[in-house]
Amino acid sequence: MASKDMVALGAQSSVIRDLFAYGQAQAAIVGKENVFDFSIGNPTVPPPDSVAEAICHIVQSEPAVGVHGYTMAAGDRTVREGLAAYMNKTYQAQVTADNFYMTCGAAASLTISLKALVENATDEIILVAPFFPEYTVFIKNAGACPVILPPDTEHFQISPAALEAAITPQTVAIILNSPNNPSGVVYAPETYAAVAEILKRKSEEIGHPIYIISDEPYREIIYDGKPIVYVPKYYANTIICYSYSKSLSLPGERIGYILVPPQVTDAHTIYLAVCGAGRAMGFVCAPHLFQKVVLQCMGQVADIELYDRNRKLLYGSLTEMGYECVYPDGAFYLFVKSPEADATAFSEKAKKLCLLIVPADSFGCPGYVRISYCVEEAMIRRSFPVFKKLIDGYKE
Amino acid sequence: MASKDMVALGAQSSVIRDLFAYGQAQAAIVGKENVFDFSIGNPTVPPPDSVAEAICHIVQSEPAVGVHGYTMAAGDRTVREGLAAYMNKTYQAQVTADNFYMTCGAAASLTISLKALVENATDEIILVAPFFPEYTVFIKNAGACPVILPPDTEHFQISPAALEAAITPQTVAIILNSPNNPSGVVYAPETYAAVAEILKRKSEEIGHPIYIISDEPYREIIYDGKPIVYVPKYYANTIICYSYSKSLSLPGERIGYILVPPQVTDAHTIYLAVCGAGRAMGFVCAPHLFQKVVLQCMGQVADIELYDRNRKLLYGSLTEMGYECVYPDGAFYLFVKSPEADATAFSEKAKKLCLLIVPADSFGCPGYVRISYCVEEAMIRRSFPVFKKLIDGYKE
Repeated sequence: MASKDMVALGAQSSVIRDLFAYGQAQAAIVGKENVFDFSIGNPTVPPPDSVAEAICHIVQSEPAVGVHGYTMAAGDRTVREGLAAYMNKTYQAQVTADNFYMTCGAAASLTISLKALVENATDEIILVAPFFPEYTVFIKNAGACPVILPPDTEHFQISPAALEAAITPQTVAIILNSPNNPSGVVYAPETYAAVAEILKRKSEEIGHPIYIISDEPYREIIYDGKPIVYVPKYYANTIICYSYSKSLSLPGERIGYILVPPQVTDAHTIYLAVCGAGRAMGFVCAPHLFQKVVLQCMGQVADIELYDRNRKLLYGSLTEMGYECVYPDGAFYLFVKSPEADATAFSEKAKKLCLLIVPADSFGCPGYVRISYCVEEAMIRRSFPVFKKLIDGYKE
Repeated sequence: MASKDMVALGAQSSVIRDLFAYGQAQAAIVGKENVFDFSIGNPTVPPPDSVAEAICHIVQSEPAVGVHGYTMAAGDRTVREGLAAYMNKTYQAQVTADNFYMTCGAAASLTISLKALVENATDEIILVAPFFPEYTVFIKNAGACPVILPPDTEHFQISPAALEAAITPQTVAIILNSPNNPSGVVYAPETYAAVAEILKRKSEEIGHPIYIISDEPYREIIYDGKPIVYVPKYYANTIICYSYSKSLSLPGERIGYILVPPQVTDAHTIYLAVCGAGRAMGFVCAPHLFQKVVLQCMGQVADIELYDRNRKLLYGSLTEMGYECVYPDGAFYLFVKSPEADATAFSEKAKKLCLLIVPADSFGCPGYVRISYCVEEAMIRRSFPVFKKLIDGYKE
């Protein structure tokens, strides 16, 4: 007497978690310094000091009943006003507090947005490979079908032809994720322009809007001075899902938001649906103290210089050894072509050397592995002989 | 292009929110001191001082990456171990860390538990009137049908005959909520014993377990030294949904848990379903800092003496004026019989005098109003002439 689907989902092992657990167990046997764990995307850069200062200041100076009490379902109005002001200043977004729904993190932003948009079991949501594997779980939870765009393994952008072919009258939305987990790629302005042109044309053709759900937890984790794209500038029907997990290094605090900009078709109706979906799943009132904290830390970003150093070190060394790596503009992942067609077999060989890297099959991109470089630089350096030995094995 | 159900849910006005908003607006016109708002159940007693101390201590003494990083999906193991130790010491519960799934508050505990248990659209969940109106929203989200047990207006316990009649082969679970919102009643041990007897017999008869989902956000808000009942002692197939919103006055922080005790039939399968449902809806990893805070404040309760004073003051004065009130053993609500059959009409008359009390129709109990007494004592005293005038109007 339990939902079979939920039991299966709860029992399902995850490649990432399994690798991580294996690494923990091996560390106890061979020593922590001999395990090279690149499996997990847990930020290693601490939050800015202003986070701890804000927490203590709020807790010590404001009445506790107010700090920890309920906010409105959509979140504290002052926080949402501050957020609107920030987005208007930074991106000329022309939004107001009423366009924001504060959420319990990135996953909540996505599950709420999807549930708000999906009406029928035949509704389709397009995913662009490679993609975060939980997207398919969230789409099924909303009662829709995932439609997967094959990866553009040349540039890891979005193939216009593939997108055009994937759209049907049942298409409700496409999830975009840039900077991308797992590829580390940032979508180019031309990519957004091309996607927007197709979505506009196809929306008219099929007679209803196709939404972009722009999943942006890595928005500010971007290198080489690349500009941050405000997606609604390219395409009006964009719903933004944001989380402070990576930008403020607060993944465990579950704080983020959904932004339904006013230029979205029937924006108010969509916003009401977001409120309804949040209510139905029990997500009203995001964690209050951290609503206040993100207001005080608005626009700040954890020091991503460390990630950047790791990125350059890994990309430089691995390409030099002969690995084929996608150039990573953002996030904290290096996406590497497996030296053999079967990335799982490659990952298994690496695992025997205590080098833990994630095969990207579950990300919809066989033949690649994801290397998470939010790790200690010293571990990266210690891992190089192992990476070298591994690739040399393919050269013999 | 949005889910019609979600739009309707998001647009739906709530009697409670509407009254609250009316009160805020009236306060600006007639003065705050002339509005008597008993509509909202937002704790007015501050959290114990230990909460602020724990927050600052953790933030200032532990590495930030650990404090704010991801925990396991089910929550920090140390926190769950502490919770198990507390439940074993306090209730001889015989549970372990593996029986707990930390959640983002009471609503999440319920939506996850329901989604874990519900398999088919014909599945039925029994509610006992009066009940928290969002239960029906959560049940529909899980894809099941609510079946409502009419209120026992004599004692506000549970009528065995009504329960027996409500059970069908489609019954999956019954939600119990004691201390009860809105009645303030605490279920007697005899009530649990009678319910358990019926559920055991009926479970055998229909060939599958019927679960109790015990919704216990008010567990420790209990007066006159009444004992706290650990429901699994009466009925093995009990899943406990808890939140620290009321006991620690942290409603805005969204922290609670689901407990699937080991004596539940197929406990591990049910627990896996809980994990799966949490994952599907995007609820993995409850807010981390507050997981740590509740561990440090385990077993503490906000000073409910203030609620108790308000309770005695209101109950004594209102019954003396001629109101018929259900004796409130717990929570912070007084449930009053409307002096006319139509409680909404009564509430409207009160509203004209700036006295804001909630008709209980949406709680499944027409003819009653809910008075929330987590308010300032001075406001209660100021409200008495209005309560008096109101009831006297029915005596003429």
